[in-house]
Amino acid sequence: MSILILASGGTFDKEYDELTGTLAFEDSHLPHMLELGRCRLEVTVRTAMLVDSLEMTNEDRELLLAQCRRARESQIVITHGTDTMVETAKVLANGLEGSGKTVVMTGAMIPFAFGSSDGLFNLGSALSFVQTLPPGIYVAMNGRYFPWDNCRKNRELGIFEALR
Amino acid sequence: MSILILASGGTFDKEYDELTGTLAFEDSHLPHMLELGRCRLEVTVRTAMLVDSLEMTNEDRELLLAQCRRARESQIVITHGTDTMVETAKVLANGLEGSGKTVVMTGAMIPFAFGSSDGLFNLGSALSFVQTLPPGIYVAMNGRYFPWDNCRKNRELGIFEALR
Amino acid sequence: MSILILASGGTFDKEYDELTGTLAFEDSHLPHMLELGRCRLEVTVRTAMLVDSLEMTNEDRELLLAQCRRARESQIVITHGTDTMVETAKVLANGLEGSGKTVVMTGAMIPFAFGSSDGLFNLGSALSFVQTLPPGIYVAMNGRYFPWDNCRKNRELGIFEALR
Amino acid sequence: MSILILASGGTFDKEYDELTGTLAFEDSHLPHMLELGRCRLEVTVRTAMLVDSLEMTNEDRELLLAQCRRARESQIVITHGTDTMVETAKVLANGLEGSGKTVVMTGAMIPFAFGSSDGLFNLGSALSFVQTLPPGIYVAMNGRYFPWDNCRKNRELGIFEALR
Repeated sequence: MSILILASGGTFDKEYDELTGTLAFEDSHLPHMLELGRCRLEVTVRTAMLVDSLEMTNEDRELLLAQCRRARESQIVITHGTDTMVETAKVLANGLEGSGKTVVMTGAMIPFAFGSSDGLFNLGSALSFVQTLPPGIYVAMNGRYFPWDNCRKNRELGIFEALR
Repeated sequence: MSILILASGGTFDKEYDELTGTLAFEDSHLPHMLELGRCRLEVTVRTAMLVDSLEMTNEDRELLLAQCRRARESQIVITHGTDTMVETAKVLANGLEGSGKTVVMTGAMIPFAFGSSDGLFNLGSALSFVQTLPPGIYVAMNGRYFPWDNCRKNRELGIFEALR
Repeated sequence: MSILILASGGTFDKEYDELTGTLAFEDSHLPHMLELGRCRLEVTVRTAMLVDSLEMTNEDRELLLAQCRRARESQIVITHGTDTMVETAKVLANGLEGSGKTVVMTGAMIPFAFGSSDGLFNLGSALSFVQTLPPGIYVAMNGRYFPWDNCRKNRELGIFEALR
Repeated sequence: MSILILASGGTFDKEYDELTGTLAFEDSHLPHMLELGRCRLEVTVRTAMLVDSLEMTNEDRELLLAQCRRARESQIVITHGTDTMVETAKVLANGLEGSGKTVVMTGAMIPFAFGSSDGLFNLGSALSFVQTLPPGIYVAMNGRYFPWDNCRKNRELGIFEALR
């Protein structure tokens, strides 16, 4: 039983580019983070794209859906920018109905490359939820999990919360 | 629904004491780690003791058991040294039989105070498993969870593995 | 004999603002960094301003000059964005001629808040040069020191180099 | 003009060995630290030994002296455990009298591998002092420099101070 981890970008994987002084993407930090966590799960890491979630297009979302559909794994973790995580979750929920797959989306409020990131905590959390939650699409943030249709990002507080 | 986190020491919480040049305990890093993880679970953190797990006595184990029994929470995470984690798990398993509680034990191979620690990953993992696993005593390490009686630490590799 | 440290902003002191997802200033990291370095020099830390050096105005530079002039300390370290560090150095050089003061400017290519920053190295370096160099205006970066008028930032390489 | 950096061990270069749970030496962190500091000095890094300074023998000290003597560089930085730094400095001072070399010894109160180390600050400091101080043997710690014969480690406070 193995787990697929799809990187799609977001704050999670942002780097500080010292020549331009801006935040940008290089490679995903996922392999390094799995090493740090001494992770011994059988995982496949794939970088679907590395984009800001505010710039994620419908095509990007369809690509993520296609990768989830095609995957032989039934447990999938997706790292994603927090701003449109729920939007992508909706696309996946519609497209994966009845597939029997458990998809857990997670991200970070602070880039992993910063010492003070929540990324490693969230990755440990998402990988654990994906092994134990029944099929469906979930968001795992702040130590909690939310079914995708009962979740929103509270932008003032910078946290995720249930709708009801 | 709230979660009790009991600190018992172990590598997880070790500090470098710069006056003596040795590893020692000061306070638990758990509050700081929960902050880093932007954890929004309702948790109570209690430091039961801060000892090396090789120096943990039967009294210490009975104290942990007593704290688990007395707890009004039915979901409990215990941070613990890895060397005798399974031994403590056995004491808890015997004493909590039929209690309906889910106890997840976790630790770290590298002190959290070191930059390269697995502690934050493991904490995210343990807090997630405790919310989703049925009652019982578990060890959560290396991204995996093990029922306490199907688990051992492989000291050569520094990882946990199933017995069968 | 005491040293004045003036913070003026730049990459050195930038933070990741998790609500907006951008780099911004909060407070200077200097006090924390001096603590990390176990610095036992007699220093006064003053935040003159916290701005991006590309947005630094003539007024800002005059303010820095005024603070250097007014200072009772004859050894001054200024943290500053790297892009216009030499420009500010020129203003200081003209205004402090004959003052007998040693001013060492330094900065960082990566914000201190990132784990991989050069800031702590540069701060240790600047504080050492300021104690040992004769009066004048200097730039301390990359472990080296440059008289202000024999120095430029090579933007392609992200390093400082001598003009001749 | 190039600088020789000799690693001799001490807290500076200690690692956490996750299989034994003890502090031990692996390789020197100096190359990585010079990279972090974006150091562009012409330096040669050599690991003379990696030992605890409390276990440093007369032979070790003679070896360091021999390496300093033989060096074509006249500027030398030595990383060393803090407990017997001054003792080694004395051996070097006697043996390098009249050599015209500037030797700056430094170390760390916290291993570099810990996030909260003073090592990077001290390295920046030592590399700067060695470029600007006249020939002699010095200790650079806490942002300060001390001629070797006017210096001691205050073990209660964990800092270096002048004798008079």
